[in-house]
Amino acid sequence: MNVLEAIRNRRSIRKYLSKPVEREKLEAILEAGRWAPSASNKQPWHFVVVTKEEKRKALADAHPYGRFMAESPVVIVVLGDSERHPKYYLADPHNAVMNMLLAAYAHDLGTCWMGVRDTDIEPKFRDLLNIPKSLRVICCISIGYHEVERDSTRRQLDEIVRWESY
Amino acid sequence: MNVLEAIRNRRSIRKYLSKPVEREKLEAILEAGRWAPSASNKQPWHFVVVTKEEKRKALADAHPYGRFMAESPVVIVVLGDSERHPKYYLADPHNAVMNMLLAAYAHDLGTCWMGVRDTDIEPKFRDLLNIPKSLRVICCISIGYHEVERDSTRRQLDEIVRWESY
Repeated sequence: MNVLEAIRNRRSIRKYLSKPVEREKLEAILEAGRWAPSASNKQPWHFVVVTKEEKRKALADAHPYGRFMAESPVVIVVLGDSERHPKYYLADPHNAVMNMLLAAYAHDLGTCWMGVRDTDIEPKFRDLLNIPKSLRVICCISIGYHEVERDSTRRQLDEIVRWESY
Repeated sequence: MNVLEAIRNRRSIRKYLSKPVEREKLEAILEAGRWAPSASNKQPWHFVVVTKEEKRKALADAHPYGRFMAESPVVIVVLGDSERHPKYYLADPHNAVMNMLLAAYAHDLGTCWMGVRDTDIEPKFRDLLNIPKSLRVICCISIGYHEVERDSTRRQLDEIVRWESY
């Protein structure tokens, strides 16, 4: 899969088939997250992979915009590790997230990422997944096969790009 | 360029050739940023593209880890827009950043991203680029051709991945 094509065509998917995701594909996705760039290469992230239905349903119940996690065969919860990089542990994990979204798309899998940090969802996820105090729950990603394709729109370049100064 | 290959092999580059970056390549990179996913598709980002040497040198002088921006032919400064999404304007721009890093790599260009937000660099960048109060300076990306290839390392998957619970 071409990188520019993946970036252009990947969409957020919220309706999944029950078909399980192969372990090799999951590992390829995690591998893409692993290779993300980070400040001073500190890699201040952890990925909790949730496949068990009961736990996915509990996460879905805790997330008002993520009810479909009950149906997506996999959820990856992304954590930021303040002890590995106190300054960039909230920013760097997003690089890993984008890599994983693209890698999943390259493996014919749909994804949707949803914020968790700084909401009342975060303490619930923390309890459900037994997450230690030094880690923050940045976001979660649903992953699965899907049937319906979607398109989307974006603001035009001239709305978001300035040259030489704002 | 294959997406998984780009994710695996892209490195941070801090030594650039003076060869200018073609406008079409720059636009392809910005286009990759434009298509990043964001909460509620609010796209709370702006990209300021700096090519003029005098301004790049001023940015380089303001950033202790970004001296090489004086030599990289292009710097993209990435802003988060609190008015477009008050909750996710600090997170979503990172998706655009990762897309731009990968797109640049696919076009044979080296990049290095450096944090700016919440440092004493941010007010300096704000002044230099005339950035309004409602926008935050998230980070900056140097872009250019380069000769030396680098490799890097990452923690192993079993150090960063947990299954079902932390």
